[in-house]
Amino acid sequence: MTPAELAARLRLIVITDRDSAAPRSIFDVVEEALEAGAPAIQLRDKEASALELYEAGKALLPLIRKAGALLFVNDRVDVALALGADGVHVGPNDLPVKTLRAAVPGDFLIGASADDPSEAQTLVADGASYIGCGTVYATTTKTDAGEVLGLEGLLRVVRAVAVPVLGIGGITPERAARVAETGATGVAVVEAVMGAPDVSQAVSALLAPWPRNA
Amino acid sequence: MTPAELAARLRLIVITDRDSAAPRSIFDVVEEALEAGAPAIQLRDKEASALELYEAGKALLPLIRKAGALLFVNDRVDVALALGADGVHVGPNDLPVKTLRAAVPGDFLIGASADDPSEAQTLVADGASYIGCGTVYATTTKTDAGEVLGLEGLLRVVRAVAVPVLGIGGITPERAARVAETGATGVAVVEAVMGAPDVSQAVSALLAPWPRNA
Repeated sequence: MTPAELAARLRLIVITDRDSAAPRSIFDVVEEALEAGAPAIQLRDKEASALELYEAGKALLPLIRKAGALLFVNDRVDVALALGADGVHVGPNDLPVKTLRAAVPGDFLIGASADDPSEAQTLVADGASYIGCGTVYATTTKTDAGEVLGLEGLLRVVRAVAVPVLGIGGITPERAARVAETGATGVAVVEAVMGAPDVSQAVSALLAPWPRNA
Repeated sequence: MTPAELAARLRLIVITDRDSAAPRSIFDVVEEALEAGAPAIQLRDKEASALELYEAGKALLPLIRKAGALLFVNDRVDVALALGADGVHVGPNDLPVKTLRAAVPGDFLIGASADDPSEAQTLVADGASYIGCGTVYATTTKTDAGEVLGLEGLLRVVRAVAVPVLGIGGITPERAARVAETGATGVAVVEAVMGAPDVSQAVSALLAPWPRNA
């Protein structure tokens, strides 16, 4: 994948969340999001067993491949590798990026969470393929990063590293355009898609501010 | 490692458990168990983050290597690989053995849980290196297998497969000799070592019934 192809897919990462999706299934919401053009999915379920996560990934993967989208798995690198997923997203309580980078194939993508420029730079030096930067806006959904950074905090991280930076935390379709003005590559969202009454519309609106490079 | 060397190390797997070890640390109990000759440790902590599990493994690994013992990690194959551990133990809610076997180096050991002969045979065909068979005796510690098999159930599994079979579930130093009579390779224990007032004595007693092959 070229950097431009990767950047195009990192305009929007839809992170799964069983509770936000209910009463719909994760599968149904992801299917609708992919049909609306979601270019990347992050499978995240802290409560699921490895087998449940693997089975969910196996069910989603054909849809994701058909859409030409990327699949990331949160935290569980073993599940990601077993699935043949494109990458993993790790937070501060997960395996260290440097350790991971030494253990996975070279083209395996590693996303990592950072809330300040020096942390982001260290993660990139350690082998991170992209940075999830947040919390941009206060949110009720748990994310790995706690502090609210605002757009200024996101901007500082965007300027600090050469890899794609995605804003995360409380980002809605209404706020996406302002996030795009920071120069971020895209956004990662949970509630804005998983909890959307109209998933298709939410995905289109979240994608709108970013140019499609590839 | 030759089959005899592996079998010698599978006389006893000491499975970690924070609650049973308290107020002592896992580290202190494992250290004492290794000094008493425990030939294999399984790092298990369902509550721990990947990072916590990794850090615990990193702290234990020098002791384990110095003792010539094996390190297994429960469930988290990624943590096991990142640590350079000898293997993983997976239960019915973890990644499937067949999937795992295709994803790990050939000499990486995969232990799997089975409570009946045909399940054990399937797991061995899928690539399991050894079978943890239980629950042999009723226990208060959670294990992956629920049904109480008794020695007869263990014996059936021992006779069904060519790989090492370890009895698990409620095995005490007093019961170890009877377990050995089934032809099992060894035992895997949580409470009998983690909760022992005298860890050294418990390990010696658990090892006593098995011949040391290598």
